[in-house]
Amino acid sequence: MTNNESSLNLSSSVDLNEAVAKVCRQAKQAAAIMAVASTMVKNEILRELSRLIANHREAILEANNLDVTEAEKNGLSRSMLARLTLTRTIIDEMLEGLEEVAELPDPVGVLEEKTTRPNGLEVARMRVPLGVIGFIYESRPNVTVDAAALCLKSGNAVVLKGGKEAIHSNQYLAKLIAQALHSQNLPPAAVSLLPFTERRATQFLLRQDKYLDVIIPRGGESLIRFTAENATVPVLKHYKGVCHIYIDKGADLNMAASICRNAKTQKPSACNALETILIHRDEAAAALALLNTSLDDVEIRGCELTRLHIPRAVPAREEDYAAEFLDMIVAVKIVKDMEEALQHIAAYSSNHTESIITRDQERAERFLAAADSSVVLVNASTRFNDGWQLGLGSEIGISTSKLHAFGPMGLKELTARKFVVHGEGQVRL
Amino acid sequence: MTNNESSLNLSSSVDLNEAVAKVCRQAKQAAAIMAVASTMVKNEILRELSRLIANHREAILEANNLDVTEAEKNGLSRSMLARLTLTRTIIDEMLEGLEEVAELPDPVGVLEEKTTRPNGLEVARMRVPLGVIGFIYESRPNVTVDAAALCLKSGNAVVLKGGKEAIHSNQYLAKLIAQALHSQNLPPAAVSLLPFTERRATQFLLRQDKYLDVIIPRGGESLIRFTAENATVPVLKHYKGVCHIYIDKGADLNMAASICRNAKTQKPSACNALETILIHRDEAAAALALLNTSLDDVEIRGCELTRLHIPRAVPAREEDYAAEFLDMIVAVKIVKDMEEALQHIAAYSSNHTESIITRDQERAERFLAAADSSVVLVNASTRFNDGWQLGLGSEIGISTSKLHAFGPMGLKELTARKFVVHGEGQVRL
Repeated sequence: MTNNESSLNLSSSVDLNEAVAKVCRQAKQAAAIMAVASTMVKNEILRELSRLIANHREAILEANNLDVTEAEKNGLSRSMLARLTLTRTIIDEMLEGLEEVAELPDPVGVLEEKTTRPNGLEVARMRVPLGVIGFIYESRPNVTVDAAALCLKSGNAVVLKGGKEAIHSNQYLAKLIAQALHSQNLPPAAVSLLPFTERRATQFLLRQDKYLDVIIPRGGESLIRFTAENATVPVLKHYKGVCHIYIDKGADLNMAASICRNAKTQKPSACNALETILIHRDEAAAALALLNTSLDDVEIRGCELTRLHIPRAVPAREEDYAAEFLDMIVAVKIVKDMEEALQHIAAYSSNHTESIITRDQERAERFLAAADSSVVLVNASTRFNDGWQLGLGSEIGISTSKLHAFGPMGLKELTARKFVVHGEGQVRL
Repeated sequence: MTNNESSLNLSSSVDLNEAVAKVCRQAKQAAAIMAVASTMVKNEILRELSRLIANHREAILEANNLDVTEAEKNGLSRSMLARLTLTRTIIDEMLEGLEEVAELPDPVGVLEEKTTRPNGLEVARMRVPLGVIGFIYESRPNVTVDAAALCLKSGNAVVLKGGKEAIHSNQYLAKLIAQALHSQNLPPAAVSLLPFTERRATQFLLRQDKYLDVIIPRGGESLIRFTAENATVPVLKHYKGVCHIYIDKGADLNMAASICRNAKTQKPSACNALETILIHRDEAAAALALLNTSLDDVEIRGCELTRLHIPRAVPAREEDYAAEFLDMIVAVKIVKDMEEALQHIAAYSSNHTESIITRDQERAERFLAAADSSVVLVNASTRFNDGWQLGLGSEIGISTSKLHAFGPMGLKELTARKFVVHGEGQVRL
């Protein structure tokens, strides 16, 4: 398709818009076929793709090398380059990922909530694919395969819009995905890589509500905000994770220190990493003494009371409490009780992840109910907000808004439920 | 509030936008309180509202009479006037509706899908309110009470935007709702009637994504389209119901005729009324003979073959197959098999309701899986696409798009699910 499209005069917005619409229209046609594909066929595509990737390992790395070389020339940041670079290990993980998705139960066609109405109608809800998913992401080329696998397994078609820095890698992988679909006589348009990399193409994609059922953006805050502001297609999004841990009066402080260390330092760049610790004032002295040690390699930005107990702490400014540091930095604040902690969370929360460390059952339940975030935990690390950790078996993203999905999204979250009804001639009275 | 607001210079868009934002901001503050209100308190509000409405029956009818008189002066259509007019019967139905909602189980706080992870984490999903719902509707003033009741019971706040023709009725009812909330010390802003009736106010409302979690429009296609095109808040919508019945080869034709009569004529103005009948060609002669009788008071617009068997039928034009007649008119088409019927449905469907009349189990299952609509039935009337009929106990609307809800939306569809996790100090490895 790339050849045909590039012969168009794409400097014309009308032409580019029509070219984007065409990709989406073909994806929608493919979606109707994918929706009724059997589990066996869908799994065979995933396994054929796995074989193709394994057999073309070197060519994938070569294509990726083109991207990396160009990116270095263009002076991409080190972290961007790291995300862009494919390695043999990452390719192995792609293969494992495909096998994992093949082994997940197929949600499509599953019947839930069966009931019989007084008039004898048998009512149930059947899981069906959403239709066509627009998936917008940045540098990591392995996401191309991960996202395609989840969308295929859940019976959806997907239009992928990757970052322009990864175009050679993505095009090579997309070619293999098309081959895998073709091997089962399914339309290659079921997984379409948008062959245009300019921002205008993304803008047009966001407005294809005639063909797309949902857009899932994955990337930095500016990408998500751009998506939300420009889309007429519904968007499943999360902006950022400003995750809190509240250490309650009477909490096991050793547990608190261990959980805070894990939540902050195990992967500081993750959205579910800890950013602010709130401590009940009665535990301030003892808790801070432990945290000062367990977080000895972490910069602490604290309130006045915190700095009294931890001299190395720097003063926390207002914006530190709203910050997603994604770094070895944590904000700390002493509060007079759990209600003040909940108010602080309500004021600064990103509706992502909050945890309470407590021995008090009643306050635990109050915290679980009142903290308005996608995952709320008692005595556990915020790092557990993750599709695999919570038992979904996969994850295509984390939603921090409540419509359709709230929290990690797995295969089920890529489906809807329709009502199916069996009757024997019933009419409405 | 109306008095304060009307003293503003609302000819200024900035002022009107800020006034709309203020209503939404107050609703959001109220939502946090409603989210943790107990079932008992919420039910008490509904019953107090029921008492207030019963006690102010005459005053409600007087306020409504102001609206009706004005509407007559302005030359509103007869059907609009009928929807606008409150009667003692409709008020009785409002009271029954409130009692029904009070008796429905409270979805908030319910735990679903409990599991224990290998590391001992106990994971469940807790139902929580969506937050603030923007509800936009047209003339019927009783919808004010119905919508408020469902939003309250599900722990949400709601901003109501009714039609300007119903303003006196709606303001009176909103005052009673505020009183009922006040009687339980809950913030009246939990149910806010937007005190501006101009279209610009609606436009501003649609862009309050900072405060609103979802918009539900209920009304004609132009209202829905206006909402979808202007909203930055997610919209749960249905455009129209172009509902099909397919009469399969070997079907019980008496059953087919009886179901078609019910689906078409029991309430032709409903969105779940039948609009197009598709008939397997082997049954054409016999089925059409029966339908000609059972639909003797219905205008038939048919394909060539149909007109051969029913001389009174007029030729169906292309647009008749796309039409939501909402009237005693039906389109009829003979098809060569179920696959052609499914293709016709895919081409003209509004994703609302489809039914197959068949004795063949296999084709029934294929039809249920393949018809891409919110409710798909076997041997039953399309009129069953309704929250009460399908056992939801209530209905705030019908969604024909798949995200979040597909089909009738009851109390559960006004909630989301967050993950709640109980641990004993677990950290991520």
